[in-house]
Amino acid sequence: MELTDLGVLCNGVKEGKLGLGLAKFNGTIAGVFTSNKIKAAPVIICKENISLGYAKGLIVNSGNANAYTGERGIEDAKEMCKIAANLFNCDAKEIAIASTGVIGRRLDMEWIRKKAVEVFSGLGNTRECAERFANSIRTTDRFIKKAFSEKAKISAIAKGAGMIAPNLATMLCFIFTSAKFETGELYEMLKNAVKPLNRLTVDGDTSTNDTVLLIALGKERVERDVFEEELTKVCYSIAKQIAKDGEGATKVFEVFVKGAKSSKDAELVAKAIANSLLVKTAIFGSDPNWGRIISAIGYSGAEVDEKITIAFENDEHNVKLVDNGVITGMEREAKEVMKGDFKIIVDLHKGNCEDFAIGCDLSYDYVKINSEYTT
Amino acid sequence: MELTDLGVLCNGVKEGKLGLGLAKFNGTIAGVFTSNKIKAAPVIICKENISLGYAKGLIVNSGNANAYTGERGIEDAKEMCKIAANLFNCDAKEIAIASTGVIGRRLDMEWIRKKAVEVFSGLGNTRECAERFANSIRTTDRFIKKAFSEKAKISAIAKGAGMIAPNLATMLCFIFTSAKFETGELYEMLKNAVKPLNRLTVDGDTSTNDTVLLIALGKERVERDVFEEELTKVCYSIAKQIAKDGEGATKVFEVFVKGAKSSKDAELVAKAIANSLLVKTAIFGSDPNWGRIISAIGYSGAEVDEKITIAFENDEHNVKLVDNGVITGMEREAKEVMKGDFKIIVDLHKGNCEDFAIGCDLSYDYVKINSEYTT
Repeated sequence: MELTDLGVLCNGVKEGKLGLGLAKFNGTIAGVFTSNKIKAAPVIICKENISLGYAKGLIVNSGNANAYTGERGIEDAKEMCKIAANLFNCDAKEIAIASTGVIGRRLDMEWIRKKAVEVFSGLGNTRECAERFANSIRTTDRFIKKAFSEKAKISAIAKGAGMIAPNLATMLCFIFTSAKFETGELYEMLKNAVKPLNRLTVDGDTSTNDTVLLIALGKERVERDVFEEELTKVCYSIAKQIAKDGEGATKVFEVFVKGAKSSKDAELVAKAIANSLLVKTAIFGSDPNWGRIISAIGYSGAEVDEKITIAFENDEHNVKLVDNGVITGMEREAKEVMKGDFKIIVDLHKGNCEDFAIGCDLSYDYVKINSEYTT
Repeated sequence: MELTDLGVLCNGVKEGKLGLGLAKFNGTIAGVFTSNKIKAAPVIICKENISLGYAKGLIVNSGNANAYTGERGIEDAKEMCKIAANLFNCDAKEIAIASTGVIGRRLDMEWIRKKAVEVFSGLGNTRECAERFANSIRTTDRFIKKAFSEKAKISAIAKGAGMIAPNLATMLCFIFTSAKFETGELYEMLKNAVKPLNRLTVDGDTSTNDTVLLIALGKERVERDVFEEELTKVCYSIAKQIAKDGEGATKVFEVFVKGAKSSKDAELVAKAIANSLLVKTAIFGSDPNWGRIISAIGYSGAEVDEKITIAFENDEHNVKLVDNGVITGMEREAKEVMKGDFKIIVDLHKGNCEDFAIGCDLSYDYVKINSEYTT
């Protein structure tokens, strides 16, 4: 199910590092944004605009994050909305906006103005239009991220190579549905469903531009519980795709923590493991160095003792490396599991709380990509 | 000023990855240890033993951290103290102990027992003895870390390649002085002076084995304020040496944060910058990508706004990249400063609090070293 199957008109253009995309629709809207205290201008303006509760269009650019650009950045973001609004024949406040790319540089408004007209003239509901839109928001992404639910009439499109590409800018995720929901409901559902995206970590850096929008076109009825379940699955799928495209990543791993005394503890442990450079480099090298996981658990801040269980799991095998504090010596078997994507299952044996995180390994290419970006 | 100039008798042996060192002395002692909740057996036993307030010797091994080894690990650590005590003709509780190396493996006690006798037989106060002792505690360290103060009669020896080598094990730092101080005073002074070691970050991982011991031999009088100042300098020097030897590091950078609203805010910002992989890889590539610093400041959790000043500084130049929120465009000059060790100076313009952190860049070799360690 493509964006355009839902009746969204869209199109985009990509020229070198710069891209511009437009989407035209009419629906209720909710969004969640970066928690970084330095927020990009488009984040500030998008938040403001979607407070209306509905939107009639979306304008996105890539290659320039319009972040740390002060008052002029705010004016430029507003101007972008105005450009889209003029083309869509609506009010600038009815336009959602997002940007991704280098921070601290002013937008080339002339380029955006010119390209917006060009993109608008090709607006349509074909598969090619959706493809061009998805492509226009890419930065270092090696592939387009997409997910859909037939059952809940959801189609999502996203960009992000480890949440941080290229200049920590960014994850953008646009989720459309033809279902009908009020703004308040949308926000509640989105807030819960984005958890996999918040549990996704490539390097612990949080962008100035992260934006997830949920837009309901109100054309049909979908049960709320069905929708919520499907929305969470869509977000989980997007999160895994972004991890897969993590800068330099060769594999994705998921961390499931159970038996924690509190939810906070479970979260701390899952994130500490997924964020540990030592764990990530060990996974790159398929090195079953579980001592690094133990150490990450130890410094996570959670209440733990040495009675921990750690298992590596894929579709075929579950290999316990440490069983309730007892070392099993199954390194050879674990090494096999580590050759592809796999799960790290941790039981703290302290309570009943659980959480998870999604990560990717750290390879030479991560260093290469990130030591050579702006210059 | 070598350890042995203070009258400490020592010696050590290194065979492949395994090492054993002994030091014989008689002094008051204080220590600070890892904050990791999974503490290695030697950390637990050392803490217990030095609670006496004095010690008569030190036994250290490298290659095996004796961490996550349960009750048997505790017994082994106690046994190590007993071995040293028998040789030094004192009580096992009068022995300080530390270990570094792979975690989750039992010590080869036979090897330790045999080597202890061998090392003891060569115990002495020559430069070669001190050298062998320092060498015996190395793991992936490319060089021995040493610092001294003539004024305060301090001689310190340390190991650590970025606080995390090889299996996050570890920083060990032994600081001897011929000055006379009570245990309580020693502890107070040490607690404050180790700040540079706590502000040192290579990858944010905290070892299970970190141990810093301060031993006062009580042979002469040194003014407390002089001693404190010199002790801090010694710790700062050790911290920079460890950063310099950070796994795969090609340069060291120091982050100085001023103008923070609170001390906590200053600490959060300094650590967020020094820990950011994006900042570390940019520094490796001499890429003056200050946007990554802005972003790290933004997600640090500190109270900040966009009116920030960022300068890169070395002995010859101070290059402002952002001046009170205004972008200066001095990237070319900043790139020059980044070619060697340098300082990142950040002014948040929010208050009067300051803090600092010490870090090193992240290179291909970090990935290489850490993806191939145990196997």
